[in-house]
Amino acid sequence: MPYIKIEVTREEVTREKKQQLIKGVTDLITNILNKDPHLTHVVIQEIELDDWGYAGEQVSVLREKGITADKK
Amino acid sequence: MPYIKIEVTREEVTREKKQQLIKGVTDLITNILNKDPHLTHVVIQEIELDDWGYAGEQVSVLREKGITADKK
Amino acid sequence: MPYIKIEVTREEVTREKKQQLIKGVTDLITNILNKDPHLTHVVIQEIELDDWGYAGEQVSVLREKGITADKK
Amino acid sequence: MPYIKIEVTREEVTREKKQQLIKGVTDLITNILNKDPHLTHVVIQEIELDDWGYAGEQVSVLREKGITADKK
Amino acid sequence: MPYIKIEVTREEVTREKKQQLIKGVTDLITNILNKDPHLTHVVIQEIELDDWGYAGEQVSVLREKGITADKK
Amino acid sequence: MPYIKIEVTREEVTREKKQQLIKGVTDLITNILNKDPHLTHVVIQEIELDDWGYAGEQVSVLREKGITADKK
Repeated sequence: MPYIKIEVTREEVTREKKQQLIKGVTDLITNILNKDPHLTHVVIQEIELDDWGYAGEQVSVLREKGITADKK
Repeated sequence: MPYIKIEVTREEVTREKKQQLIKGVTDLITNILNKDPHLTHVVIQEIELDDWGYAGEQVSVLREKGITADKK
Repeated sequence: MPYIKIEVTREEVTREKKQQLIKGVTDLITNILNKDPHLTHVVIQEIELDDWGYAGEQVSVLREKGITADKK
Repeated sequence: MPYIKIEVTREEVTREKKQQLIKGVTDLITNILNKDPHLTHVVIQEIELDDWGYAGEQVSVLREKGITADKK
Repeated sequence: MPYIKIEVTREEVTREKKQQLIKGVTDLITNILNKDPHLTHVVIQEIELDDWGYAGEQVSVLREKGITADKK
Repeated sequence: MPYIKIEVTREEVTREKKQQLIKGVTDLITNILNKDPHLTHVVIQEIELDDWGYAGEQVSVLREKGITADKK
């Protein structure tokens, strides 16, 4: 019975990426834990940039300063 | 001090149904646990169909295939 | 696809009461929303009294002062 | 590694107030726990008034009756 | 800035499996969303079998009846 | 109606620190949002070091390597 919640800032998370996240996380977790996928739910929650704070600053402010969360 | 979060796909959950959920869950839980309703909060969070995954598929895709979550 | 989380202070929530909560909440929500119970998960999370704060005070401190959350 | 989620009814929580919440909560928690702010994330989630229940009633109904959550 | 919460029943989730979950989910999500892993936190929460309800029944009761969540 | 959840690794978070967190967060949020403290709940959830992943690694492993989350 896994339930997975993915919270991520709302920045170009397309329908296709969401489907990849759901398929990938479900496969991974059901394989590692040997769980029936029909008992596995994944919920994605996009968070507005004004609503996520990192190191005391709104992500919207960080982005305005040119600071991204991109992989290096 | 109960706090209850109800996550459900956004599919015709009317204001009236939400009120029924809030009243019903509050009554049920405060009765079983003998809690003061003024210490009991219920939060409903509707999730877009692209954002809920079941068995590795987006619910929006399942609905397009005619697969519902209706009670049988 | 409902998922319900019930957070409550750890105060004599017996196995029987948990079963009543799970059965009651599942019946209520699947009836109001016309959902298949096999797509409905309920998770109960008990919280230690030191870990729940109400009006700025730990519940453990409130209980020491004789302040309960009992229904009146 | 703290992660903090703030759920609040959607009632005039301006961008400035959100920034104050994020800065204030981050400072407070990293000071008390001596944590690196770069490992500290704060997420604010505004909840519609129809979706928050208190004492068995929707907050939207309470507000229509003139009952507020204002500090006295 | 992803934050991921994995809730799963407490059934032989070893330290090694947890590490696999954390590594796998982090890799997957940071790849799909092109995110810096240093901004990615994963939290696993194991739930006691008395505390997880499925289709209105405690998982502990389902297990006593020989009903598992194993992949077929 | 704010509800605040603080998730933090289980590392010497004493009863006194918890009380400071609860008092501090409640004061801060009720002041910024002008909310009645009696409608404000704070829940602290300590997470075992094996259960929190950062940058793809268990915090327990990071700590064994001497990597802390301490403020610099």
